Amino acid sequence: MTTQPYIDHARAIALLTELRETRPLVHNITNYVAMTLSANVLLALGASPAMVHAVEEVEAFVSISASLVINIGTLSPSWVEAMRLAARRAVALKKPWVLDPVGCGATPYRTQVAAELATLGPSIIRGNASEILSLAGATSAGGKGVDSTADSAHAVSAAASLAKRTGAVVAVTGAVDYATDGEHAVSVASGDPLMTLSTALGCALSATTAAFAAVAPPFEAASTALMVYGAAGKLASQACRGPGQLPAALCDALYTLDATLLTEYATLSNHSL
Amino acid sequence: MTTQPYIDHARAIALLTELRETRPLVHNITNYVAMTLSANVLLALGASPAMVHAVEEVEAFVSISASLVINIGTLSPSWVEAMRLAARRAVALKKPWVLDPVGCGATPYRTQVAAELATLGPSIIRGNASEILSLAGATSAGGKGVDSTADSAHAVSAAASLAKRTGAVVAVTGAVDYATDGEHAVSVASGDPLMTLSTALGCALSATTAAFAAVAPPFEAASTALMVYGAAGKLASQACRGPGQLPAALCDALYTLDATLLTEYATLSNHSL
Amino acid sequence: MTTQPYIDHARAIALLTELRETRPLVHNITNYVAMTLSANVLLALGASPAMVHAVEEVEAFVSISASLVINIGTLSPSWVEAMRLAARRAVALKKPWVLDPVGCGATPYRTQVAAELATLGPSIIRGNASEILSLAGATSAGGKGVDSTADSAHAVSAAASLAKRTGAVVAVTGAVDYATDGEHAVSVASGDPLMTLSTALGCALSATTAAFAAVAPPFEAASTALMVYGAAGKLASQACRGPGQLPAALCDALYTLDATLLTEYATLSNHSL
Repeated sequence: MTTQPYIDHARAIALLTELRETRPLVHNITNYVAMTLSANVLLALGASPAMVHAVEEVEAFVSISASLVINIGTLSPSWVEAMRLAARRAVALKKPWVLDPVGCGATPYRTQVAAELATLGPSIIRGNASEILSLAGATSAGGKGVDSTADSAHAVSAAASLAKRTGAVVAVTGAVDYATDGEHAVSVASGDPLMTLSTALGCALSATTAAFAAVAPPFEAASTALMVYGAAGKLASQACRGPGQLPAALCDALYTLDATLLTEYATLSNHSL
Repeated sequence: MTTQPYIDHARAIALLTELRETRPLVHNITNYVAMTLSANVLLALGASPAMVHAVEEVEAFVSISASLVINIGTLSPSWVEAMRLAARRAVALKKPWVLDPVGCGATPYRTQVAAELATLGPSIIRGNASEILSLAGATSAGGKGVDSTADSAHAVSAAASLAKRTGAVVAVTGAVDYATDGEHAVSVASGDPLMTLSTALGCALSATTAAFAAVAPPFEAASTALMVYGAAGKLASQACRGPGQLPAALCDALYTLDATLLTEYATLSNHSL
Repeated sequence: MTTQPYIDHARAIALLTELRETRPLVHNITNYVAMTLSANVLLALGASPAMVHAVEEVEAFVSISASLVINIGTLSPSWVEAMRLAARRAVALKKPWVLDPVGCGATPYRTQVAAELATLGPSIIRGNASEILSLAGATSAGGKGVDSTADSAHAVSAAASLAKRTGAVVAVTGAVDYATDGEHAVSVASGDPLMTLSTALGCALSATTAAFAAVAPPFEAASTALMVYGAAGKLASQACRGPGQLPAALCDALYTLDATLLTEYATLSNHSL
């Protein structure tokens, strides 16, 4: 009998501690807008980031990395080929990888690439509600570019379907965040509306998720990433008078986050579907 | 008889309000250095940015966007092909698009690409004096890389010629900024010298111009962008002890800018050529 | 008889002053993660940066630039071709160029490209200990991605060998920084451990090195860059509560650095090998 996946604050802080002690190398194939922030978020969190996308070296780099994140934000054919090679190698080496289907639904090309990558065995898929709804084929939500037009709560059943079909844990982020393996879900209330006004914060959350996937199974990794990142985001937002300082404040919050702050700034609830 | 184009603070603040309420999706094909800042500036301003450049999807993305900005800062042939496709689709769909001819004049390739794009029907062209002089063919100004070596006031007549020849409104930025449709011009005194010491601020102004082009005709859009951005830049510069904090402070200033601040920080003057 | 290369605080501050007065145009072919920070660091320092990588224009751009930096952080074949063209043109025009072999040793492709570029006549090579050890072939250090796993002091003899073999001055950075021409070395104690938690700071140091190479011979340029950047980094780190604000604080520190601060924050020692 499989144990129900379950997460609580104590487990999340234990994973954060383990991450900081092991400093896993996280391989990022991500978009141009998100690269610098993703690297800085991973460093502040305690991981070791690298951005490597050439077809000539992605497979070799997967083999020395602890986990991988593939983000299609600014995709083009040569990058998509690198994504395929990296995803397959990660699966072959039993290394976890996270898919961020940025803007899925916005153009046919983007949707097709996201759908193909979702079949290549991601451990975790992380997107906003529009992206997850589109990827799940559950609706023709019509995302507005890369910002979400749908509510994350409404995407949970689509996420559960997507999880069952792909075998991935699916995380849907919005005003409240969810992670589900198709049977069980956790919801995390944290973050702040100001976070929607600073670019690539969702992408850097996907990178954070990959970092936790290096030290925990997918459900725990996805849930812990939501808690840690959401708590840090909320803490950071409260320290900012506008969105400009938010990326720097978020890194500082990730750097200083401890058990007390995590408990205070991230509320979570486990439930069966 | 055509009404003289005209702009004042009241009209500018009305356009800013409309922009914030409608949150137009702005499609950016821009350079690697400017992407993150352009996205953050657009979000802080109240627009919804997306960075999409693959030949496979630029046309589809133009069709769901409200406006487009094409910036040649880090151009390469595959990107130039995407720029052509996007510009043509924008014109076909009667959507406004803004050309930023970064570094025009610095290399023959760059000048040739900028000149070609200028024939594809941009609504607005925004550059520094060296770039506009080079693009207008009015002089062999010899730009120093991507920073301007010429004075914006000296470029106004070249800008007017360029406007007449291309049908675009031309904005020239520098110590004082100008926008002209070839017959009429507006000058905006705002900004701060510190802004020349932080990268990609001109590029993000072009993105801001595209956002206003989604809610107003080209002359009003270009002029309002100069006022709003210049006021925010001046406000931000006064809050910084060096250039490091300027990008974040600029976003915060755009986020908080209101009628009072706009009037205080941007001085403008309309005149016929 | 050749004079021993030698550097002191007075010479360093004289070079910084000259750099600020001449504002050299520095051509960057660098990685996506580092571009924005490199540009901002160069502007804050007093140089004029440009990021230009298209095969169609790199040679023309080298000819109008004062110096060049080639950084392989996010390499791909078309970029490598541009790097080759630019390096050869720089050597032909007797313009200094700096090689940053990011992640050398992490994958065979990366190591091979770095090794090839090192034969093309760089004036200065700047890397962390793992990268320099790998490039020197002195050891199979096994870099962890792009972060160093080796100590910079242990890499000094490898750096000296690399310097003799390539004719470049080699700078190795870490807790203490070193520059050597193979016969003589300088060590600089400055910086702060917090700098390892913010991305692309090493890359921006390489860009800084290229800026100084525009106004001084390689040994002096490399040494002065270590002193100026290290002092600014230490000053900036002390003003930050975490790594988030560090890039902005570093730019502000470079902008305000003077003789007094340089002397206080960078300790140096010249010695023969």
